Amino acid sequence: MAFNTRTKIKEVLALEPTGQDTIVMGWVRTFRSNRFIALNDGSTPNNLQVVVNYENTSEALLKRITTGACLKISGQLVHSTGSGQKVELQASHIEVLGDSDAEKYPMQPKKHSLEFLRENAHLRMRTQTFGAVFRVRNAIAYAVHQFFQQKGFVYWHSPIITASDAEGAGEMFKVTTLPLDGTAPKNDDGSINFKEDFFGKATNLTVSGQLEGELAAMAFGDIYTFGPTFRAENSNTTRHLAEFWMIEPEMAFYDIEDNQNLAEEFIQYLIRYTMAQNAEDLRFLDERLKEEEKALPQDKRSEMGLIEKLQFVVDNKFERITYTEAIEILLNSTPYKKKKFQYDVQWGIDLQSEHERFLVEKHFKKPVIVTGYPAAIKAFYMRLNDGCEPGRETVAAMDILAPGIGEIVGGSQREERYEKLVARMEAMHIPTHEMSWYLDTRRFGACPHAGFGLGFERMVQFVTGMTNIRDVIPFARTPKNAEF
Amino acid sequence: MAFNTRTKIKEVLALEPTGQDTIVMGWVRTFRSNRFIALNDGSTPNNLQVVVNYENTSEALLKRITTGACLKISGQLVHSTGSGQKVELQASHIEVLGDSDAEKYPMQPKKHSLEFLRENAHLRMRTQTFGAVFRVRNAIAYAVHQFFQQKGFVYWHSPIITASDAEGAGEMFKVTTLPLDGTAPKNDDGSINFKEDFFGKATNLTVSGQLEGELAAMAFGDIYTFGPTFRAENSNTTRHLAEFWMIEPEMAFYDIEDNQNLAEEFIQYLIRYTMAQNAEDLRFLDERLKEEEKALPQDKRSEMGLIEKLQFVVDNKFERITYTEAIEILLNSTPYKKKKFQYDVQWGIDLQSEHERFLVEKHFKKPVIVTGYPAAIKAFYMRLNDGCEPGRETVAAMDILAPGIGEIVGGSQREERYEKLVARMEAMHIPTHEMSWYLDTRRFGACPHAGFGLGFERMVQFVTGMTNIRDVIPFARTPKNAEF
Repeated sequence: MAFNTRTKIKEVLALEPTGQDTIVMGWVRTFRSNRFIALNDGSTPNNLQVVVNYENTSEALLKRITTGACLKISGQLVHSTGSGQKVELQASHIEVLGDSDAEKYPMQPKKHSLEFLRENAHLRMRTQTFGAVFRVRNAIAYAVHQFFQQKGFVYWHSPIITASDAEGAGEMFKVTTLPLDGTAPKNDDGSINFKEDFFGKATNLTVSGQLEGELAAMAFGDIYTFGPTFRAENSNTTRHLAEFWMIEPEMAFYDIEDNQNLAEEFIQYLIRYTMAQNAEDLRFLDERLKEEEKALPQDKRSEMGLIEKLQFVVDNKFERITYTEAIEILLNSTPYKKKKFQYDVQWGIDLQSEHERFLVEKHFKKPVIVTGYPAAIKAFYMRLNDGCEPGRETVAAMDILAPGIGEIVGGSQREERYEKLVARMEAMHIPTHEMSWYLDTRRFGACPHAGFGLGFERMVQFVTGMTNIRDVIPFARTPKNAEF
Repeated sequence: MAFNTRTKIKEVLALEPTGQDTIVMGWVRTFRSNRFIALNDGSTPNNLQVVVNYENTSEALLKRITTGACLKISGQLVHSTGSGQKVELQASHIEVLGDSDAEKYPMQPKKHSLEFLRENAHLRMRTQTFGAVFRVRNAIAYAVHQFFQQKGFVYWHSPIITASDAEGAGEMFKVTTLPLDGTAPKNDDGSINFKEDFFGKATNLTVSGQLEGELAAMAFGDIYTFGPTFRAENSNTTRHLAEFWMIEPEMAFYDIEDNQNLAEEFIQYLIRYTMAQNAEDLRFLDERLKEEEKALPQDKRSEMGLIEKLQFVVDNKFERITYTEAIEILLNSTPYKKKKFQYDVQWGIDLQSEHERFLVEKHFKKPVIVTGYPAAIKAFYMRLNDGCEPGRETVAAMDILAPGIGEIVGGSQREERYEKLVARMEAMHIPTHEMSWYLDTRRFGACPHAGFGLGFERMVQFVTGMTNIRDVIPFARTPKNAEF
C-alpha cells in the first residue's frame, strides 16, 4: 500500500480552491494561537497556512504541533482571507509523523546566525535561507546541463582519482590504501613503494578535469564536465573550499573569441533560467541581502539589489579588455595614484583581488572578460599569442571577473601546436614522458580548441548573494573541517 | 575573429541538399580512392561522405588526408547517389588542421580488440563503438536529471571527502596530506595524530551519499544525488570499479512500495529517453553485440537483441517478489535439484550472482524486484518489517535485478523509528555518538522515507550491451590501474 498520497505545497498554493479534499505532508515552521500552522515541505519557500479546528482537536495533539514536527494533514482547500495567500487548508485530520521536542530542536523559529547554522549544517536546509540557497543551487545545476545538451555537448566524466600531478593547478590530496604509520612498503632507497598501493602508483584527487576533457573534445567536438575537484590549500577564506564542483566545457574548433562568446552566453543562460524558475527564492534572498547589508556602513553596501544585479548582467554585454588594457586602467586609477592598492601594479603581475574588484565594481560596473595574460603567469597548455614583443609574450587566456566575487571563470584557447607545447612544458619542468597521452592529441589530428572552467559554488554565490562560499555547498570541506 | 563557423555533421546529414555552401570540421575515418573521405565529428555515429575533386587537389594535400587527420572542409551539399545517405559534400576547399601520421596513429581503420582500446583509452572514443557508448552514457545522464527535475526533486551534492566510515558499504580510500613514510605526527600511544592532517581528523572517500541525502530529504522532501563514489576493494571483475558514479534519490513520505514504483518508472524513463534520442547509436551497438556474440556458443548468446531487450523492459512491468518467494523458487529449480549452483540455497543467505541470474534470465526473463531481505544481511538503516517470526526478521529492502547485469538498484525504506534504529546500530557495533547528526533526523520531525541507489555504469552497461564495466566509463580505476 503506497503511502505517498500528498500534494506538494508548491502545487497546492497554485490551485484554485474549491473546498477540494487535499492531503499535505511537511514540517511545522510555526504554530500560532493553537490555530494556525505554517507548514513547509521544501518544495517552495512559501508555507501553507493550515487552520486547525482547535475545539475538535485534543489537547494532547495540539501540544505535539511544535516547530520542526512532521505532520500529515488532510483537509479542504479554501480561499484564504487573512494569510496573504490565495489558499489555506481547513484541517479535518492531523497525524503527527514525527515529533520535535521544542526545547531541544536547534532550529528555533527565530533568526539564527549563519555561523550557528554552519555548525548545524545537517539541519540548516530546513531554514528559509538555506532552503532558498539550495533550491537555487539545484536550478543552476540543471540549467548547466540544459544549456550544453541543447547545443549537443557530451557530458564527460573525467576521473576523480588521478596519477597525473602535472597540471600544477594547486596542492593535491593523496589517495591511498597504504598505512600512514611508517609500515608502508618501501623501496631500497627508502622511498615508498607505491607498486604496493591500490593503484600500483601514487594517486591524488583531481584538481581539474580539463586535460581528460581535451581528449574527449578531440573525439566529440564539444564536451563538458561537471564534477567535484579538490585543492589541499590551507586557505581559510570566504572564497575557498577544499572540495568544490566545477564545470569545464572544452570545444574543438573554438578560438579564444568563440570561447568568450560561449562563456558569456552560458552565464547569462544560468541566471535567466534561475530567475524564471526560482523567482520566489530569489525574492527572498534579495530581501535577506538587503537586511544583512543594513548592518554595513553605506559605502560597503551593494549598489544594486540582488535581482537588480542579476537583471543587469543578463541585459548587458560583458566588457572585454586585454590584460594590457587592464594594467593601463589600473595605472591611471585613483586608488593607484593615491597608493590605496596593497599590491603594486605593473605589466607582468598577476592581478590581485583588489585590482579585479576595482575593474569590475568601480570602473566598468559589470562583468569583465580579460584576455591576453602574460605567458609567465599562466598554465602550460594555454596558446601562445603570435607576434608578441620579446619579453612581452602573452597567451590566449581569459578570465571572467564578476562583481562581488572576482574570478568566476578561467579559460583559454589551448596550445594545439605540438612543438610549441612541448617547448613550453619543458621550460616549465613538466615531465612530457608522463603526459604522452595528452600530447597524442597534438600528434594525431590536432585542431584549434578552447575551453574554460566555471567554479560552480562561485556561480551559486553570485546568484544567491551569499558572501561566504561555505553557505552555498551542503557540507563545506575546509582546513580542519570535514563534519557530517 | 571567431573560428567556429562549422555545421555539425549530425545537422548536415539532416539537411535538404540544395547545393548550399557548407563548412564542416572533423576527423578522417577513411579515405578511399583519393576521392571519398568519410568524415566524423563525434556528433553522430554516421560519417559524412566528402567528395574530393582530386584533379584539382595537390598531391601533397591528398597525402595528408589520412586516418585521424583533422580537416576543415568547405563545399556544396548535394544529393548523394551512392553513399547510402541522402547527402554528400562536394569539397571546394580542404584545410588540414592537424596531421595524423598513418604509420604511427594507433587507431587504424580496422577492428581493434576491446583490450587494445582499453589500453588506448585516451583515443578509443574516436572509434565508432566508444563514440556510441559515450554518447549513450551522456543521454542517460541527462535523462537522470530530466526525470527528477520534472518531478520537483532537488539535485543534492553529498560530500566526496568524509570523516564518516560508519556506513559499512565497503572498504574506503584514505584521503590525506600527511606523509606516508612514517614521519606523520603521532600521539603518545603511537597512533597517527590526525589533528595534524588537513581536515583535523582521518578522512576517506565516500562510499555513498545516502546518509547526507536523508538529511536533505527531511528538508526538501524529494532529493537525488548524482556523483562519484568509491570502493577500495580488490575486485578485478567485469562488474566492479574502484571509482564509479551513483544516483541516489531519497524521498520523504515514501514507503517501500512507493520506492519500487519510482525505481521502475525511473529505469524505464532512462531507457525510453535514450531509445528516442540515440536511436542510431543503439542500432550500431545492437549490431556490434550480435557480431560479438557470433563467437559464442549458441547457448551463451543473448536471447534477445539489444534493442529488442530494451523495448521489452520498457513495455513490461517488472516482476515483484519477496526474498522468501525467491528462495522457494530457487529451491524448486532444476539447477538447485541438479546441484548446478556453486553456492547453497537456504533462507538467510545473501543471493549470489548465479541465483540472481537464474531468477532474472531463466525463471522470469525480465527485471525482478526482490523485497523483504533478512535483516541480518542488510544495512543498519533499513526499516525492520513489523510482525516477523522470531529468527526470521526481515527489512523493507529492495534490490532490482536486471538480465545480464545482476543487481542494478539497491534500496530500502529507512528505519525512521529512533529507538529501533539505535538498537540496530548498537547491535551492529556502529558508534551512535559519531552519528548524532544522522540520528537528529529521527529526533526532530522524523517521517517515513525511502530511497535507492542506481549504479550509473551498470545502467550504461545494460543499455549499451557492453559486457565489461571498464568499457562504459571514460577512464576506469581498478586495482593496479589509474592510467590517464
